Amino acid sequence: MKKVLKAILPAGFKANGVACGLKKSGKYDLALLYSERPSLACAKFTTNSILAAPLIVSKKHMASCRGVRAVLVNSGNANCFTGNAGIRDAEASARYTAEKLGVSKDSVLVNSTGVIGKRLDIQSIRRGIPDLVSGLSAEGIRLAKKAIMTTDTFPKEISVCLNIGGRQVNICAIAKGAGMIAPDMATMLCFIMTDARISGKALDRSLGVAVDKSFNCISVDGCMSTNDTVLAMANAQAGNKLISGGKDFEDFSKALECVCMELARMVVMDAEGATKFIQIDVLGGTNYSQAKKIALGIANSALFKTAVFGENPNFGRIVAAVGASGFGIKERQLKIKMSSLKRRNIKITVRLSCGKAGATVYTSDLTPGYIKINAQYN
Amino acid sequence: MKKVLKAILPAGFKANGVACGLKKSGKYDLALLYSERPSLACAKFTTNSILAAPLIVSKKHMASCRGVRAVLVNSGNANCFTGNAGIRDAEASARYTAEKLGVSKDSVLVNSTGVIGKRLDIQSIRRGIPDLVSGLSAEGIRLAKKAIMTTDTFPKEISVCLNIGGRQVNICAIAKGAGMIAPDMATMLCFIMTDARISGKALDRSLGVAVDKSFNCISVDGCMSTNDTVLAMANAQAGNKLISGGKDFEDFSKALECVCMELARMVVMDAEGATKFIQIDVLGGTNYSQAKKIALGIANSALFKTAVFGENPNFGRIVAAVGASGFGIKERQLKIKMSSLKRRNIKITVRLSCGKAGATVYTSDLTPGYIKINAQYN
Repeated sequence: MKKVLKAILPAGFKANGVACGLKKSGKYDLALLYSERPSLACAKFTTNSILAAPLIVSKKHMASCRGVRAVLVNSGNANCFTGNAGIRDAEASARYTAEKLGVSKDSVLVNSTGVIGKRLDIQSIRRGIPDLVSGLSAEGIRLAKKAIMTTDTFPKEISVCLNIGGRQVNICAIAKGAGMIAPDMATMLCFIMTDARISGKALDRSLGVAVDKSFNCISVDGCMSTNDTVLAMANAQAGNKLISGGKDFEDFSKALECVCMELARMVVMDAEGATKFIQIDVLGGTNYSQAKKIALGIANSALFKTAVFGENPNFGRIVAAVGASGFGIKERQLKIKMSSLKRRNIKITVRLSCGKAGATVYTSDLTPGYIKINAQYN
Repeated sequence: MKKVLKAILPAGFKANGVACGLKKSGKYDLALLYSERPSLACAKFTTNSILAAPLIVSKKHMASCRGVRAVLVNSGNANCFTGNAGIRDAEASARYTAEKLGVSKDSVLVNSTGVIGKRLDIQSIRRGIPDLVSGLSAEGIRLAKKAIMTTDTFPKEISVCLNIGGRQVNICAIAKGAGMIAPDMATMLCFIMTDARISGKALDRSLGVAVDKSFNCISVDGCMSTNDTVLAMANAQAGNKLISGGKDFEDFSKALECVCMELARMVVMDAEGATKFIQIDVLGGTNYSQAKKIALGIANSALFKTAVFGENPNFGRIVAAVGASGFGIKERQLKIKMSSLKRRNIKITVRLSCGKAGATVYTSDLTPGYIKINAQYN
């Protein structure tokens, strides 16, 4: 498997990004990802019970379409908590895109990210679509990846290739995310495009595991978004033997997990206001779920995160977080090791004496920068 | 019922506070609360599974003693995660106090608050005890209330009196707390002294309800401490008919709830770095527990709290927090009302259409001041 931290679209995919006017700053805010052929698509959505309108519409379209042809993504507005009008706006933006592309409406998915509770400026989106469609190209991914950003300070992108039965299979992905990042869902927006030939069941299983081990193991602020989506599209252009199980499935899954893990790490690297990248390893747990919950309990402790910001090795706050996790861990069962807090990359090792399971979680420190960004956002 | 925001000890109680050297600043750090007669005592402790040594010792003493005579409290060190040595230190400080007072060791309870994971400076405590004991007086409560403070900027105190069957019954309480404040336990340290004659069962029930509606309804940072204790001592000096049920019990419980609620509000008022006092009312819930959990979900959202600090009415963050609460609340079931964020006191009303139950929770904003205090603490 080869990996490069740059988005290179597999054959059969095109993309583009424009500034249609949703962001007052004039920055790119509308992206289109396009597949020349109907693609098999799988997605993991937020488990937040208040779902943004584009997710409701995309779920419906995915259930009814015969292959996905395009994904329209806007930043600057989440189109969430906008009622039936929001659903109609999401439907309309899919329809405009489908008309321009000459494809069926339900083969177009939609995604939004930004402020919750404000109507989408559908006229700006409508005006942006013709240029977006006419400018589609393989290189356009470099504009698309910018157009999905909100408080991100850098675009998140990766490409890997691997060998499946003598054929080169490519996977390319872009993501956005810097705040309102919490686990137990598919976090933030991530779009994965591959030319692999793979069964729907295999892609879904592979994506589920990859998301659980990557995006669901990061937390910036413990806040779960209403718009989180990880979408994988496979257009079968690589011409490989259908991946459905065995070694091919394992190889593909390993590559997909690598893609998701790298992007998840980039999200934490770019966490709002962060000055530190923190890895928390919990070892000696009863099972993976317990170890992960304890690690996330530490990752979401405001006191732990401010101590790391202050380069203050206050391990008592880790003790308090472990004790508060609800698993009845006693003092004698707990050992804590911290790397120097003076560095950018911090490693915390929590050793329990419960069993043999472990989990790793990534997070950032809590800083005045985070507060500044979020006190003024919108 | 009459209420005054000042600690006035009921007859039969004395107190004192000294600076024994645990705090490098030279501030008061050792308090003693003393009952001339054996007092009935009830306590609610943190549900954190890693219990500080003084709590382990106090639980043991409460189970074996015939009435509590004194509580020794130090600030500046939590004596938690200190192993068997910490237990021995807690035992020793109870023993020194008991010797000076001429009472049995197990009639002395101990409490600590401050940094977790550091051995207690038992020699300083030992040297402080003679002065602490010899200076005991009714007025000494004004030193004791200061000696239990850590990052608190003001002491928290209240006294109420009520009529029980023609007799005046007095309740006085002091508390400390400003950070590492989260519910689902008895939060922070609070010592309640009353001259009421009351049965153990009645005092325990009354305290349980009062704590659940007050200290368990506040959150500063969602971080659960290892040392939280609310202790009530009743010395029966008021000479009232034993309170065990009926109207007397209801009146006493109402007064105790008032005491706990006022102190809980003071803790939030004094929250580390806070510029706002936020009341969150959730109405129309299925039951109290659901409404309270949703309110706490909002209270613990870092994004909501920074928005309030920025006086930014970003209600989308309330939407996201409600949706993330795990109760499956849908968009159409949710209405949100916010008072002006320009004021010091903010009121958020979240109206669900699930049922008729409601809950109120108190919290503060998340500010650069909170980060400054906690990046540098210890």
